[in-house]
Amino acid sequence: MGLFQISQVRLRLVDETKIMKDILPRQVRRLIEELAKLPGIGPKSASRLVFYLLSRPKTRSDELGEAILNLKNNLKKCQRCFNIAEKEFCPICEDLNRNSNLIMIVESALDVIALEKSREYRGVYHILGGVIKPIEGIGPDELQIRELLERVRENRELEEVILATNPNLEGEATAMYLAKKISDLAKKSGRKILVTRIARGLPVGADLEYADEVTLSRALEGRREFIHTPDS
Amino acid sequence: MGLFQISQVRLRLVDETKIMKDILPRQVRRLIEELAKLPGIGPKSASRLVFYLLSRPKTRSDELGEAILNLKNNLKKCQRCFNIAEKEFCPICEDLNRNSNLIMIVESALDVIALEKSREYRGVYHILGGVIKPIEGIGPDELQIRELLERVRENRELEEVILATNPNLEGEATAMYLAKKISDLAKKSGRKILVTRIARGLPVGADLEYADEVTLSRALEGRREFIHTPDS
Repeated sequence: MGLFQISQVRLRLVDETKIMKDILPRQVRRLIEELAKLPGIGPKSASRLVFYLLSRPKTRSDELGEAILNLKNNLKKCQRCFNIAEKEFCPICEDLNRNSNLIMIVESALDVIALEKSREYRGVYHILGGVIKPIEGIGPDELQIRELLERVRENRELEEVILATNPNLEGEATAMYLAKKISDLAKKSGRKILVTRIARGLPVGADLEYADEVTLSRALEGRREFIHTPDS
Repeated sequence: MGLFQISQVRLRLVDETKIMKDILPRQVRRLIEELAKLPGIGPKSASRLVFYLLSRPKTRSDELGEAILNLKNNLKKCQRCFNIAEKEFCPICEDLNRNSNLIMIVESALDVIALEKSREYRGVYHILGGVIKPIEGIGPDELQIRELLERVRENRELEEVILATNPNLEGEATAMYLAKKISDLAKKSGRKILVTRIARGLPVGADLEYADEVTLSRALEGRREFIHTPDS
């Protein structure tokens, strides 16, 4: 019975591809396939996007196509922090108003945007380009870790390194690996570099009732004295 | 207070755009803006898609860009049913195995794909290109209704017209409008054309408990005799 069902499902899938092939022009099918390769876009939303583009004037879809073709033109990586940049260095590394003795280590350039939007941080960044994932064959050498340690070694004024990898298994492991490397380096050269980790706890607006245990125990671990404003 | 909050939000938005402008290269910003114009893609998923494309080889994003630019090349509308086509007529209208005396009226070419996947229907289609929406200035003349009535008039063998516009306010109103037009036309020429509407009821796999009242009342209205297979 189970086998029968599986072959039914397979038949159905083969059939669907055949139906699409029978009724859709080649270039329409091709774009559906290309869009469906993108993360978070399944074949259904891909079809919907394609038919939306078909319903718009050609200039409109051409603008999107050109924007995609132009995306990587003249695009560089910042020589210091590996953020995307148009010149040798990114605008953040070039900004003299920022504290270059405070480095925040993040996984990707997307994290930089999110952090910049919070408008809290005035230091600089270092983008790893991912996290250590032994299962996928991503070790320290596949990330911009050598360059980070070089930066730490060279900047004798460096005060603090903030580890801001994601608070999941791989992110924590990578943070731990980096903390050890940086501390070792500081000890060897007789320097004092503060290594911190972003706080893990309840997200603002969250419900204690629905929080998972790990988050709750981190929120407790990381508790701080509550300074209340005195009546005045 | 209310006004204060609004100006706070506005400040924040202006600020976000400025931050994106300060830290993101022009072409990256442009693609985020273009993608965010697509239905169902907000600025956040647009950024995520762009950074995904940035992380892939250039050939990969070029393929997507080319597919979008090529989308409308040599693409036509079927002269009979207005489905997308590579030639004068679409594959469905050209298929001699299909019953051209049975026309299903749908809003868009996407509906044709959905219906073809069900593999139940062996007639032909007519795509309206939308529904009547007086508020948006879409009247019968903005849709392929004149062409539909012409088709009905010319095909003396026509047996049935299935109204398969969406079961919402505008879809129902458009179906009603078309039913009247087609019946009038049949009466005038002394012909008998069956005009049917797709069934509205509980979707398969649905829960009666969670269905809305209108769907439930339609499901009751449309009930049919339950033919059970006799024990044998």
